[in-house]
Amino acid sequence: MSLDAVLARIDADLPASLDRLMELLRIPSISTDPAFKADCDRAADWLVADLKTLGIEASKRPTPGHPMVVGHAPGDGPHLMFYGHYDVQPVDPMDLWDRDPFDPEIQDTASGQVIRARGASDDKGQLMTFVEACRAWKAVHGNLPARISFFFEGEEESGSPSLVPFMQENADELRSDIALICDTGLFESAVPAITTQLRGLLGEDFTIKGPDRDLHSGMYGGIAMNPIRVLTKILAGLHDDSGRITLPGFYDGVPELSDAVRSQWQGLNFDHAKYLGDVGLVEPAGEHDRTPLEQIWSRPTCDVNGIWGGYTGDGFKTVLPSKASAKLSFRLVGTQSPEAVRKSFRSYLESALPPGFQVEYRTEKGAPASQMSIENPAFEKARKALSDEWPRPAAYVGCGGSIPIAGFFKDILGVDAMLIGFGKDDDQIHSPNEKYDVESFHKGTRSWARILAALA
Amino acid sequence: MSLDAVLARIDADLPASLDRLMELLRIPSISTDPAFKADCDRAADWLVADLKTLGIEASKRPTPGHPMVVGHAPGDGPHLMFYGHYDVQPVDPMDLWDRDPFDPEIQDTASGQVIRARGASDDKGQLMTFVEACRAWKAVHGNLPARISFFFEGEEESGSPSLVPFMQENADELRSDIALICDTGLFESAVPAITTQLRGLLGEDFTIKGPDRDLHSGMYGGIAMNPIRVLTKILAGLHDDSGRITLPGFYDGVPELSDAVRSQWQGLNFDHAKYLGDVGLVEPAGEHDRTPLEQIWSRPTCDVNGIWGGYTGDGFKTVLPSKASAKLSFRLVGTQSPEAVRKSFRSYLESALPPGFQVEYRTEKGAPASQMSIENPAFEKARKALSDEWPRPAAYVGCGGSIPIAGFFKDILGVDAMLIGFGKDDDQIHSPNEKYDVESFHKGTRSWARILAALA
Repeated sequence: MSLDAVLARIDADLPASLDRLMELLRIPSISTDPAFKADCDRAADWLVADLKTLGIEASKRPTPGHPMVVGHAPGDGPHLMFYGHYDVQPVDPMDLWDRDPFDPEIQDTASGQVIRARGASDDKGQLMTFVEACRAWKAVHGNLPARISFFFEGEEESGSPSLVPFMQENADELRSDIALICDTGLFESAVPAITTQLRGLLGEDFTIKGPDRDLHSGMYGGIAMNPIRVLTKILAGLHDDSGRITLPGFYDGVPELSDAVRSQWQGLNFDHAKYLGDVGLVEPAGEHDRTPLEQIWSRPTCDVNGIWGGYTGDGFKTVLPSKASAKLSFRLVGTQSPEAVRKSFRSYLESALPPGFQVEYRTEKGAPASQMSIENPAFEKARKALSDEWPRPAAYVGCGGSIPIAGFFKDILGVDAMLIGFGKDDDQIHSPNEKYDVESFHKGTRSWARILAALA
Repeated sequence: MSLDAVLARIDADLPASLDRLMELLRIPSISTDPAFKADCDRAADWLVADLKTLGIEASKRPTPGHPMVVGHAPGDGPHLMFYGHYDVQPVDPMDLWDRDPFDPEIQDTASGQVIRARGASDDKGQLMTFVEACRAWKAVHGNLPARISFFFEGEEESGSPSLVPFMQENADELRSDIALICDTGLFESAVPAITTQLRGLLGEDFTIKGPDRDLHSGMYGGIAMNPIRVLTKILAGLHDDSGRITLPGFYDGVPELSDAVRSQWQGLNFDHAKYLGDVGLVEPAGEHDRTPLEQIWSRPTCDVNGIWGGYTGDGFKTVLPSKASAKLSFRLVGTQSPEAVRKSFRSYLESALPPGFQVEYRTEKGAPASQMSIENPAFEKARKALSDEWPRPAAYVGCGGSIPIAGFFKDILGVDAMLIGFGKDDDQIHSPNEKYDVESFHKGTRSWARILAALA
């Protein structure tokens, strides 16, 4: 079983691999917009057909939303399940794109060649790194080095409404020894990463109502309580002066870093001044006694994502508004319970309302954090394989974002998930001019070949 | 000179008077929104034409903003100057209006007939009470009982930027023995009022800027300071727990009530529970150690009139926004200096900004409070005339609102201003479904006829 031959094949086949990716990128599979339903279906068909060229028994599986694609390749050794998603984010604002988001192009840039298109990085380019690694393996050896299943979703960018029911209904079929997910990034250009902790998310979208109509601040200012004043007091009270979140019980279930992880993160030499400076900021805003990396990766947060109330047009209006609204999100870690945090927040909010005031909640969104156990020896094997491919050793890292699929593999199927990806911070995913470095694609494909060899 | 004939004429002409008011109400003269510039102009033209039907030499007078309307009717006796404004507040939120705000209608309600439209009470309906009183007088007697001038502004609801320069440039023309201003309210349905103290106003409209672009709260939540968090903390810090405003020096120049005024106000038996209950509120929100009437009439306030930032559409977006904005107004009393309060506020705000944050201010609005002297015998004459028309005697009252024009008449022209109006607390001025009672309009017109007779 020669890995070198597979890597050589990947190198030689790169132009054809890129051509295949371009084909997939030309399909505008925007899952959130019903106008693109047929395109999502077409992307699923394309993947089924492509898997079949590898001799994999693949099919499109209906859901109430967009279809799943599931494929199985028999083989010896451990059963590996690979997950990716073929749907993409909407493309507006269109006027900020330099070209048609669904007319992909390889472009030369100061930092190397990039594939420019919606979905190039998130997640079609990443998904295809694994498929191309399998293709090269098959071409060289005639079969795959392990029993491998493929599981592609078409609703990841629109909240994955069909995912949990589908996993529950097909649990026996989807269960495997480990799940491989390619939807994350490198730590740095030279440092690959396995993401082992992801923050959870709790959203609150609410309106505080005071007077039953908008009032004139001349007639009522002073005597009438202003809902914006109530709201700002509530929101301002969520953090204390040290950056800590004040809700009772909020830090229940927030773990301290293990010494091993702490020292590994210290070794990353994260340059927070540059990270903040790149977006025009100066000082870290989180808990004063936590390092910047902890603030992003391992500490829970609370952010107001939107606020509105009263008159917001041009000019002036001395209105004392009847209501004020906010959208809030908490990033959760460890075993923090979304329901417990929601309860604590609502209890705090409601106790801060003056008599006669009311609150209306609009959301029920929440997912706990994921913390991968790295006891499974597959993690160390994969980390070594990644380290062989890239200039510097691979790191176990955290991620501030929320990727619920990892938790679902564990909770529904009892399977550990390994998050390995090759995206970069400047890929502009979810934004205009999304790109994926050709190097990410090429070395990503080679990385999977190495990982398959290591795990087989 | 028969007053009774004039009053009878007013009664008989009521339907036609209402028709004329409806014509004026159909013109959407929203001064703060540039989209309605032509409509403001049209409202001015309508008034010029209407004054001309009374034989008054009237003209539209240009300003850098919306035009003034000035008219003069020669006559014997004292020179009376009447001021009103033809512009109106914006109408949003439109979905809370029961009908088109500029399609006025006479409606039957449990408490009598009302004229429903934006501007019905503030200030087109009030302005027309005086014009209709003059029309009746002219119809009965062939001329007016005094030398009367008319001065209508079109920028009152957007901060009157052209008013002071216009008064300064035309001081000789506008100077009179007394100014009559119809932009205030009854004390109660049965108790008319002459307003002798008005709060001043200081507006601040600003944006706090943090990161130089919107950020993803997964990647930056925790480490990046959120401008909404900064803004809410600044706004929440403006009041202490006792309802007092915390800005250093804010209460400089705030006088205590004289014993005479205090005892007169106590005699009014103000029912604050009803005043608040009528708009769905329970508790007075002002300084805990002040009576509710003091909170509205004689104490300074600070209110947020508008707040916005981040994502405010449907659903959820875990954005960490680059900026957050608010519109704020302070009601001032006594000799509080708008400039000193602005300076104190800005100094407080800027000292609360984290390193790297910036603030952009958009307003330069400010007017001190006014306190009328009631030595001029016209005040007592008018109070008696009002008392003849209404079920109970007229009162001298304070007003929480800011009508800077009264101070300008005194400061620029040396003329005392008498504020008499017929609005009611439930007129919903500045709010959806604004109305003016037909009784306010009718008895208001009759009141002016009586006052003209008393002052002539």
